[in-house]
Amino acid sequence: MKTEILFGIHPVMEGLRAGRRAFKALYLAQNRADDRTEALSAAAASHGVPVRRISPEKLRSMAGSEFHQGVAAEVGPFPTVADPLPADARAPFLLVADSVVDPHNLGALIRTALCAGVDGVILPRDRAAGPTPVVSKASAGAMEHMRLFLATNLARTLEDLKKKGVWISGMDAGGKRSIFDSDLTGPLAIVIGGEEKGLRPLVKRQCDFLITIPQKGPVTSLNASVAGAVVMYEAFRQRLAAGGNDR
Amino acid sequence: MKTEILFGIHPVMEGLRAGRRAFKALYLAQNRADDRTEALSAAAASHGVPVRRISPEKLRSMAGSEFHQGVAAEVGPFPTVADPLPADARAPFLLVADSVVDPHNLGALIRTALCAGVDGVILPRDRAAGPTPVVSKASAGAMEHMRLFLATNLARTLEDLKKKGVWISGMDAGGKRSIFDSDLTGPLAIVIGGEEKGLRPLVKRQCDFLITIPQKGPVTSLNASVAGAVVMYEAFRQRLAAGGNDR
Repeated sequence: MKTEILFGIHPVMEGLRAGRRAFKALYLAQNRADDRTEALSAAAASHGVPVRRISPEKLRSMAGSEFHQGVAAEVGPFPTVADPLPADARAPFLLVADSVVDPHNLGALIRTALCAGVDGVILPRDRAAGPTPVVSKASAGAMEHMRLFLATNLARTLEDLKKKGVWISGMDAGGKRSIFDSDLTGPLAIVIGGEEKGLRPLVKRQCDFLITIPQKGPVTSLNASVAGAVVMYEAFRQRLAAGGNDR
Repeated sequence: MKTEILFGIHPVMEGLRAGRRAFKALYLAQNRADDRTEALSAAAASHGVPVRRISPEKLRSMAGSEFHQGVAAEVGPFPTVADPLPADARAPFLLVADSVVDPHNLGALIRTALCAGVDGVILPRDRAAGPTPVVSKASAGAMEHMRLFLATNLARTLEDLKKKGVWISGMDAGGKRSIFDSDLTGPLAIVIGGEEKGLRPLVKRQCDFLITIPQKGPVTSLNASVAGAVVMYEAFRQRLAAGGNDR
């Protein structure tokens, strides 16, 4: 089995809780002993995962990051899904991240998506951040629970979704319709562009609507992960009000 | 005049545009020459600010940060305001950041606040991040335009605001009322707690309401700056709908 190294308290704990990847071993830094590492050891033991104590230096080199918090795990690859649409959602709510390259932005988007009731996240397979351990860390482990689909051809995936009745709403600074005046209930995919260039033309062409976030003030730009959070939560609000987000 | 060093393209440009602090000099790295540094030079010239070319090493040491983007400026101190209430707002919309210690979280909150039409931000004077150049950078320069009040005694400031008719809504994970079911129009101060402990008890006691963000899924926590963005934008949405956010 090809393996990779998850690191940080939340990714490892949520990885164990989600139960979606094989865990070969849990590694804890020799100098760490607190409630959270105790809880991790207990969770690992209950899943039959061996726990090993190693030096902080070794852990750092294994994680390839200084943000390991004394915790790492050797795990199987992240299980992406084969169908962008969840089988059981009556009115699916999807997030499409087109060309988000910063793993921290992608992780933040996935973390918010999980809280806002998003059923699945769609990413282009190439030229964008993917479901790596760094993204899992940036998502505070939320990625371990999220349904992720990697699209080989994102425009075609959106076309397929449209045929299946999903409305495609693209976030675009030039969009004429405010998110607050758009109906975001029903089967929906919200498409968010990359940090620098926004939506790619081929992707934009697949959108049924272009929507925008109203902004005041002289500095007219929200951070990418904040903009994503605002639109996902507006959709969540509308879906709660419509009673249509339960599956 | 006591001075400090603003750094980064946006803080320096927005500082010049806002016109709220004295600029003694603009410093550009010798190796930088592009549209944005050209625009900065022109803006500085039009404000009568001398422009000096220095080595990237000197600029880095002057900024005390590697994120200077080849741009720094020697400026007067950030002009905080003497009254937490703006004189001209009919229904003021304030953000109170209680004990936010990470300058990046504070900067992100201020950036979003400016976009969401917040009239002023209130911070405790001690034991919290303040209006430093690092926060201005993290806000993408939005801080240069924002009204900021430093409270010596935050609980007393909130008490004073209540006497003046402002409703105090505290964000609290244990709050019973959803932000979506709360009236966030009218004179309003939204209080956000620090990253670790939430609202301090003395501050919490001053709140008229405790409100919470609905969350789904197994990982029940939004990032601090995302949570702030969601509640500020919900208030902005309600105020736009009520037609009451114009001054």
